[in-house]
Amino acid sequence: MDGTHPTFTPHGKHLIAGEWVAAELQFHSSPAQGAVHGFSVGTPAFVDRAVRAAEEAFLTYGYTSRAHRADFLDAIAEEMEIRVEAITEIAMSETGLPEPRIRNVELPRTANQLRLFASHIRAGNYLDRRHDAALPDRMPMPRPDLKMVQRPIGPVAVFGASNFPLAFSTAGGDTAAALAAGCPVVVKGHSAHPGTSEIVAVAIAAAIDRCGMPRGVFSLIQGGTREVGQALVQHPLIKAVGFTGSLSGGRALFDLAMSRPEPIPFFGELGSVNPMFLLPEALNARGAALGKGWAASLAMGAGQFCTNPGIAVIESGAAGDAFVAAARDALAATAPQTMLTDGIAAAYRDGTARLDASDAASTVLETPSEGRMAGPNLFETDAAHYLQNEALGEEVFGPLGLVVRVSDAEEMMSLALGLRGQLTVTLHMNDADTEIARKLVPILERKAGRLLVNGFPTGVEVADAMVHGGPFPASTNFGHTSVGTLSIRRFLRPVCYQNMPDALLPSDLA
Amino acid sequence: MDGTHPTFTPHGKHLIAGEWVAAELQFHSSPAQGAVHGFSVGTPAFVDRAVRAAEEAFLTYGYTSRAHRADFLDAIAEEMEIRVEAITEIAMSETGLPEPRIRNVELPRTANQLRLFASHIRAGNYLDRRHDAALPDRMPMPRPDLKMVQRPIGPVAVFGASNFPLAFSTAGGDTAAALAAGCPVVVKGHSAHPGTSEIVAVAIAAAIDRCGMPRGVFSLIQGGTREVGQALVQHPLIKAVGFTGSLSGGRALFDLAMSRPEPIPFFGELGSVNPMFLLPEALNARGAALGKGWAASLAMGAGQFCTNPGIAVIESGAAGDAFVAAARDALAATAPQTMLTDGIAAAYRDGTARLDASDAASTVLETPSEGRMAGPNLFETDAAHYLQNEALGEEVFGPLGLVVRVSDAEEMMSLALGLRGQLTVTLHMNDADTEIARKLVPILERKAGRLLVNGFPTGVEVADAMVHGGPFPASTNFGHTSVGTLSIRRFLRPVCYQNMPDALLPSDLA
Repeated sequence: MDGTHPTFTPHGKHLIAGEWVAAELQFHSSPAQGAVHGFSVGTPAFVDRAVRAAEEAFLTYGYTSRAHRADFLDAIAEEMEIRVEAITEIAMSETGLPEPRIRNVELPRTANQLRLFASHIRAGNYLDRRHDAALPDRMPMPRPDLKMVQRPIGPVAVFGASNFPLAFSTAGGDTAAALAAGCPVVVKGHSAHPGTSEIVAVAIAAAIDRCGMPRGVFSLIQGGTREVGQALVQHPLIKAVGFTGSLSGGRALFDLAMSRPEPIPFFGELGSVNPMFLLPEALNARGAALGKGWAASLAMGAGQFCTNPGIAVIESGAAGDAFVAAARDALAATAPQTMLTDGIAAAYRDGTARLDASDAASTVLETPSEGRMAGPNLFETDAAHYLQNEALGEEVFGPLGLVVRVSDAEEMMSLALGLRGQLTVTLHMNDADTEIARKLVPILERKAGRLLVNGFPTGVEVADAMVHGGPFPASTNFGHTSVGTLSIRRFLRPVCYQNMPDALLPSDLA
Repeated sequence: MDGTHPTFTPHGKHLIAGEWVAAELQFHSSPAQGAVHGFSVGTPAFVDRAVRAAEEAFLTYGYTSRAHRADFLDAIAEEMEIRVEAITEIAMSETGLPEPRIRNVELPRTANQLRLFASHIRAGNYLDRRHDAALPDRMPMPRPDLKMVQRPIGPVAVFGASNFPLAFSTAGGDTAAALAAGCPVVVKGHSAHPGTSEIVAVAIAAAIDRCGMPRGVFSLIQGGTREVGQALVQHPLIKAVGFTGSLSGGRALFDLAMSRPEPIPFFGELGSVNPMFLLPEALNARGAALGKGWAASLAMGAGQFCTNPGIAVIESGAAGDAFVAAARDALAATAPQTMLTDGIAAAYRDGTARLDASDAASTVLETPSEGRMAGPNLFETDAAHYLQNEALGEEVFGPLGLVVRVSDAEEMMSLALGLRGQLTVTLHMNDADTEIARKLVPILERKAGRLLVNGFPTGVEVADAMVHGGPFPASTNFGHTSVGTLSIRRFLRPVCYQNMPDALLPSDLA
């Protein structure tokens, strides 16, 4: 790709059950670089058409064999890979993310995720099949024959994230898990990358036709107005929502889902500051190296990861000073990076200004951030101020770090107790820190879905044992994960069949 | 027990972490027979004490071994069995349920349920342990070591049901599942059987002491005011709610749980009319027998089962007439029975009067119901009226049946499609009905947590494959069950440990 011959020009339409449709009203993309394109604004009427088609598709798709659905997931992965040039070009243009991130990381990750779900459903353990055989002679009452299996729930609404235009978007984790479970999907296109959503929808449509799946199994309704998301969450035929985004937007949609006449599960991932606790021996032994490592993790991808480690907790003292100095120096040497959208860049500046103006934190490093560019910023506070100022614990999306100094292990525990829900919490420790770690882990494991030792939380492995979730506001359902094979459970419900003849059982039980 | 020497007189206090406490304000029990007793009214302050004690207990109880918790569950069962005389006496008095139901059904069921959870956690499969081993040489990035296990969520609030004073109450399914998972429980005592709750709490307290469990692991706060339930659902340290009760009460508490600053899962079972579909060949072959069987199921326990089959769907014609006549005659020969509370009896009369006054249904049999007694009632309507009048599909708790006549299989399908969420749906069918059943099952399995063939839904087996749940309003979480071993999942959350030294892993992973 030399940048002069665009391989893909979006037509700006919605995909509804295999048809590309548009209304006159348009919104325009706001790319980091390259051409602006027009996209049809979504409407409740388009949402209704898409959801009705999804419901109709469910009547067959919900009864496809696991092998057939697995082939379909594999086909989506292939159809995306076939379009690697177009996908890379438009995603780079819209998001400002660098080419290797799209081409070598995001696209392979998205394809691998689809293939992982394919092999997961081929194996079939997720069905949790159970059988209590009849006991006709049991006293005082016979036991009937009971068979249980996990069944797909019906049409699912998916709201993608701005920061992973592939892996957490149109054909991302939520879509892959729902399709794997047997649920049709209606995606609300993210307005930060509508062209990327379109080309991915093209790939999904091609896979649908290749595999002979019902076309209503997937629709993409572009946004451009809040009405689209609201209509989707409130549609009576939608049975669950997968959402990745901001706390305010997510909470508003969560509230809508819960206040429906028939409430539905809302699986939202809403934000996290991912605290790191640097235990004394580790801090003493390798404070400067940890500071440098933290700076790299903080600034990676302009800090636009849900698992960005925004908080570092250290004991006051010389080792802590060395950690902070190393982090500051490394961040100061970091070039400004392009953020995903103008809105995110503006919110980053606002968040930085809020900390700057706060009496509760002091500035360690401030770099200018203009337009869509963001430079790293570093602030410092202490445990007492952190615990008294809830705003210090709110996520500032971007390359911003906050050091929280504690006086001793006791205060570190108090700080841990005062944390809100997180996606991840990290311990940096040496063997000699084991005693204090043993006291911290029981507190911290209640605060996050994933606990790490001696690593950085950015990089969310798509695997069987991954948990990407946690107590509110990290997620709206601490009982679930939105990454990894366990995430399929969100789109399943148990059904028990009592004395049911084999001819009437679902194929997974027959 | 000769009824003249009461073996148990409730003292009317709350149990908070091992201490029996009371305030001056009292409410009085309203027994079906026997002595009225005074009980201390619950308050938000008592709730707060109990929940704080539960949180403190969790710090140790959440880390007990599965073997220790299993012994504890077994001990609760034994301590209840030791008190069989007192439990039977007070539960009969308070609920009006007959002695064999309490002594021979409910108490053994409750004890067996506790023992089933004990063996379930001893086996440990519910932990769903997963391990993705490190791949240090993987390109482009190494994979860390990831281990996952299901961990208990923290203190759980339980609201028992009036109709199962043991099995769905103080030491019932919700409590057993939560304690098995490793979660402390605060029960809001049901005001329909406060003395029964008290004696069961005595048994649990004895088991706590026998097993050396922290006393905060269980508390009972008696009701007497709505404030208790509201305070419990809104307490920041409560992490989930198990509820069995009415749609209106459950929805109000659900809404409170969802509007918390930190929303928590609310596992509510709210009501169901449990439709039965009588397919043509079965109706022809054994309509009269089915009518008689239905009447027996409808009237059993004064119809006070969540799975009471309130609706029978039949094709119009002679076979249907014979079914209705048989049901009517059998119900007419059924003696009135005592209902659980005056309020339930009054609601039953109101529900009957509503149908009586409705233009959408006609009366087949009406029997007088006075005071706390209820006689059976039978009404009839057709598919068009049923689908146009939502009120016909609302549960009338008690021995009330509604026959819905359809003109043909087509209309039976429409009716099925129009159903709200149910705990159960039943098919009565012969082999020759298989074709129509094949069309109905995909519709019906989306409407209910359990599908039965040729049986009656009353009788909910406590087993691995049981699902007692379903789409709203049958339950508030169609992804879960409140009966059977799978119900433990409600009180667990997955946690991932990345590169965690063995010394810091929870014992279930180490």
